[in-house]
Amino acid sequence: MNPPQKKKKFVSINQKILKESIRLIEREGLDRFSLRKLAEKIKMDPMAVYHYFSSKKELMFSCLQLVFKNFSPNKDSVSKGKPKTKTNLKLSHSQQPEPDFLILQEMIDSYRKKYLQYPNLCKYLLIHPESIPPEIEEYNHMLIREIDRLVSNLEEARLIRDILVDFLHGFCLAEISIAKKNKIQNLELESKFQKSIHFLVRKLLRS
Amino acid sequence: MNPPQKKKKFVSINQKILKESIRLIEREGLDRFSLRKLAEKIKMDPMAVYHYFSSKKELMFSCLQLVFKNFSPNKDSVSKGKPKTKTNLKLSHSQQPEPDFLILQEMIDSYRKKYLQYPNLCKYLLIHPESIPPEIEEYNHMLIREIDRLVSNLEEARLIRDILVDFLHGFCLAEISIAKKNKIQNLELESKFQKSIHFLVRKLLRS
Repeated sequence: MNPPQKKKKFVSINQKILKESIRLIEREGLDRFSLRKLAEKIKMDPMAVYHYFSSKKELMFSCLQLVFKNFSPNKDSVSKGKPKTKTNLKLSHSQQPEPDFLILQEMIDSYRKKYLQYPNLCKYLLIHPESIPPEIEEYNHMLIREIDRLVSNLEEARLIRDILVDFLHGFCLAEISIAKKNKIQNLELESKFQKSIHFLVRKLLRS
Repeated sequence: MNPPQKKKKFVSINQKILKESIRLIEREGLDRFSLRKLAEKIKMDPMAVYHYFSSKKELMFSCLQLVFKNFSPNKDSVSKGKPKTKTNLKLSHSQQPEPDFLILQEMIDSYRKKYLQYPNLCKYLLIHPESIPPEIEEYNHMLIREIDRLVSNLEEARLIRDILVDFLHGFCLAEISIAKKNKIQNLELESKFQKSIHFLVRKLLRS
């Protein structure tokens, strides 16, 4: 009888299931992923997998929680309006190139990076909004708060947030398709994204 | 020997293959669609299907051509800057509510309708830009021309076109997911789309 060790083993199998699930979902696609396939892969009895996750829905939720762990940006930097990136430019305050927009751009870019890394899990999120983990809920609230800080109109902030997220999904969808086909990460697309989001954010947020 | 009748029969089987392909692709998804499944469905020998379409790629291209037939808007209305929709409002010229943007909104909306009707074929287009049929090429050129007419900057017009298309793809992706889940066409989403595109087009195009 060694309860701490038992707990450790539970956590380690739990993590193994999650990691293999994420790998399988991203490699084979959402439609082809099943608990049976997963159990086969990790050489477990399918019923034993159910001991850890009572349903596919619960498993997916835990995968999303793991992938989006620590996803929300630093709350302090957002509330103070400071971007995480330090600029090397030595400019007087009035010459600063709109630092306000940088936090927003960084937040959008961080979601894009997750999407490119875990496209199938992110697609699952889109189809199952009820499976949104608290980390993404928090991210969403911070995104709206950040936009609201810039436009001072909550309804408009929500509309702008939705437009930005839809644009992001469409861009990533094309980016993934192109990357998959060319079997390379396209640097041109990275620069295209930065240019587009820079343009779009300014157009949407400038009064 | 009756060549016209032979040709008629060829066209009719050709059309039957195309229509069944489109139906299968939209019902079963791109991954699950195959010439073998199609042949089974229309009770034809798979080799006979190849007599009509030498490859899956050729078949897909023909499906897209059929779906996007007569897709480009009336060239005259675009070049003259007149929207197709007739407004019931009796306003003097200076009071007209920005008729310039209406053509663009109509063009975007017509693509959205195709996307909602044929999501899987539109996804194929995204992954295989080399399969773009002439009708969509023409639509793309007209879209850029229409935006360029409003911003007078070809590079910016291309950027705005890409942003609008990415937004559209992202919006439709969410719309289809929600519609599929709720098994209904959501009127709320229709009004959300009109509101978003109205807002976005004005923000992007107003100097």
